[in-house]
Amino acid sequence: MKKIINRPEDYTDDMLRGIYAAHGDAVKYAAGDLRCYCTAHKTPGKVAIVTGGGTGHLPLFLGYVGEGMLDGCGVGSVFQSPSAEQIFQISKEVEAGAGVLYLYGNYTGDIMNFDMAAELCEMEDIETRSIVGADDVNSSTDPDKRRGVAGIFYMYKCAAAKAAEGGTLEEVFAAAQKAKEYTRTVGFALTPCVLPELGHANFTLEENEMAMGMGIHGEPGIWNGPVKTADEIAAESLETLLQDMPLVPEDEVALLINGLGATSVEELYILSGSVTRLLQEKGVKLYRTHVGEYATSMEMAGASISLCKIADEEMKRWLDAPVCTPFYCQK
Amino acid sequence: MKKIINRPEDYTDDMLRGIYAAHGDAVKYAAGDLRCYCTAHKTPGKVAIVTGGGTGHLPLFLGYVGEGMLDGCGVGSVFQSPSAEQIFQISKEVEAGAGVLYLYGNYTGDIMNFDMAAELCEMEDIETRSIVGADDVNSSTDPDKRRGVAGIFYMYKCAAAKAAEGGTLEEVFAAAQKAKEYTRTVGFALTPCVLPELGHANFTLEENEMAMGMGIHGEPGIWNGPVKTADEIAAESLETLLQDMPLVPEDEVALLINGLGATSVEELYILSGSVTRLLQEKGVKLYRTHVGEYATSMEMAGASISLCKIADEEMKRWLDAPVCTPFYCQK
Repeated sequence: MKKIINRPEDYTDDMLRGIYAAHGDAVKYAAGDLRCYCTAHKTPGKVAIVTGGGTGHLPLFLGYVGEGMLDGCGVGSVFQSPSAEQIFQISKEVEAGAGVLYLYGNYTGDIMNFDMAAELCEMEDIETRSIVGADDVNSSTDPDKRRGVAGIFYMYKCAAAKAAEGGTLEEVFAAAQKAKEYTRTVGFALTPCVLPELGHANFTLEENEMAMGMGIHGEPGIWNGPVKTADEIAAESLETLLQDMPLVPEDEVALLINGLGATSVEELYILSGSVTRLLQEKGVKLYRTHVGEYATSMEMAGASISLCKIADEEMKRWLDAPVCTPFYCQK
Repeated sequence: MKKIINRPEDYTDDMLRGIYAAHGDAVKYAAGDLRCYCTAHKTPGKVAIVTGGGTGHLPLFLGYVGEGMLDGCGVGSVFQSPSAEQIFQISKEVEAGAGVLYLYGNYTGDIMNFDMAAELCEMEDIETRSIVGADDVNSSTDPDKRRGVAGIFYMYKCAAAKAAEGGTLEEVFAAAQKAKEYTRTVGFALTPCVLPELGHANFTLEENEMAMGMGIHGEPGIWNGPVKTADEIAAESLETLLQDMPLVPEDEVALLINGLGATSVEELYILSGSVTRLLQEKGVKLYRTHVGEYATSMEMAGASISLCKIADEEMKRWLDAPVCTPFYCQK
């Protein structure tokens, strides 16, 4: 294992101390617990949005807390869920009179703890609603069982914009729901990552092998085989995406090419170029393209392709709304 | 070699096609040459700033072209210089009546070609001045012979802010010069990267070996040895930086923790926390901290630490000026 760290067991808290030291003007922690990550700027009357999940996916999840985006994030250990108590403490801190939306990935531990936190909130008369991202097409044929991956960015963006516009909890939930309905992701890995406390990769890939459909915690994909070209990967991924969410000429989409960690930004743009060309050949219009690291697996090599079909003008406004967190700024 | 690419020989141009397709509202190319990368929004009367260098370092160099930052970038092949003709064509395109500042890294091929481009400009009565970034302390004891690495970000930021304020070519040059004078960098690598057309790493590091002082093209550093902890790396790096640029209590600095590509953002924040703690122990104040990928070597693992000593209030204003390029936004 080659990592720039101190004690492996301090990985998450050392990271958090670094983040608070760098961005103390924007974020703080609640209840004396580093893992109760909150915006430093509460907006009275706004629906608060709280997310959460394991460490190891930056900028997911905590990186989306900030101006125009989310209000709090429960930070778990590497690839582990935050506790119900932590999510509850964050909710109490960021709740601003209009209720709290829980918006996170479709993972068992997270669901259990967010549900328990919602019960704790209910006892204190804090209203909550919950929705999970479940955009990873290859993870299940059943949309309800799909894992949440990079496509949750569009749910964050739409829900946060609606909240900033003064939407009610129900309306903010509906905005997240609309983004969820229109977003699909396909991902693939080229190398594994190493969990700091394990010290070795939890799976292996051969010298020239890739894993199509692998999850961001190394969950098995749908095939392992020789690394394909960017054009081939784009074609196969788009076929998967469009089988699940058909597009016709003149449809508009937002495209997110996400790097899993070790893959260079140069390669992400090569892949983005391949996907864009194929979409244009189908007569589909690109409304906005995001390329970079949005949801990683530490130093895993690989990428994901997310499409968010533009549902209406309202969604365009949400996607275009300016935001600025310590990890992600959009003008 | 595991990369998401098509033909290795198309790496740079495929990447550029992807970038133009994604960000056609912000950037364009001049003279029918993809590698003549220019802002799409020329500001009449402003000093134009042109940079350039080899591909493989995104967001360096072209990623800093955009609103509030640079105006053009000559794009070379992987780790190679752009041509004099390309730099000249870019200069003609972006020149807006107030001359052109050439601001790039201290590498032989780049110097030769930017100097030739300056001569071509002179023949067409376009005034130019040139300055190179040379912040990599471990690359030479002679400051004039040092390589330019991530610290060039501060030169870009200060020069661009001065240009946006309406500064003359001489004043914009002086802003870059001031940032150069007050900026130092130390970098280190944990793994090599693979040049697409070579297909293999151009050096090797053992299973638990790091290279202190290694350059962003794999230039040898000052020692190879077992990977140290984040705290140890921070302490040794700071000692090197402060020997070259002493700091006393109450001095203020901007800190840039830059990832070389494969290193996770989590680790960068762990390192940032270590550096911040040591600076605070010395009574040095952190004015602003940037953490992320600012100058990479494709999928090389490693990082660099840059300090920019705050010279005066003017420099704070320059560092704080909002900018937004397709690769880097700061509010």
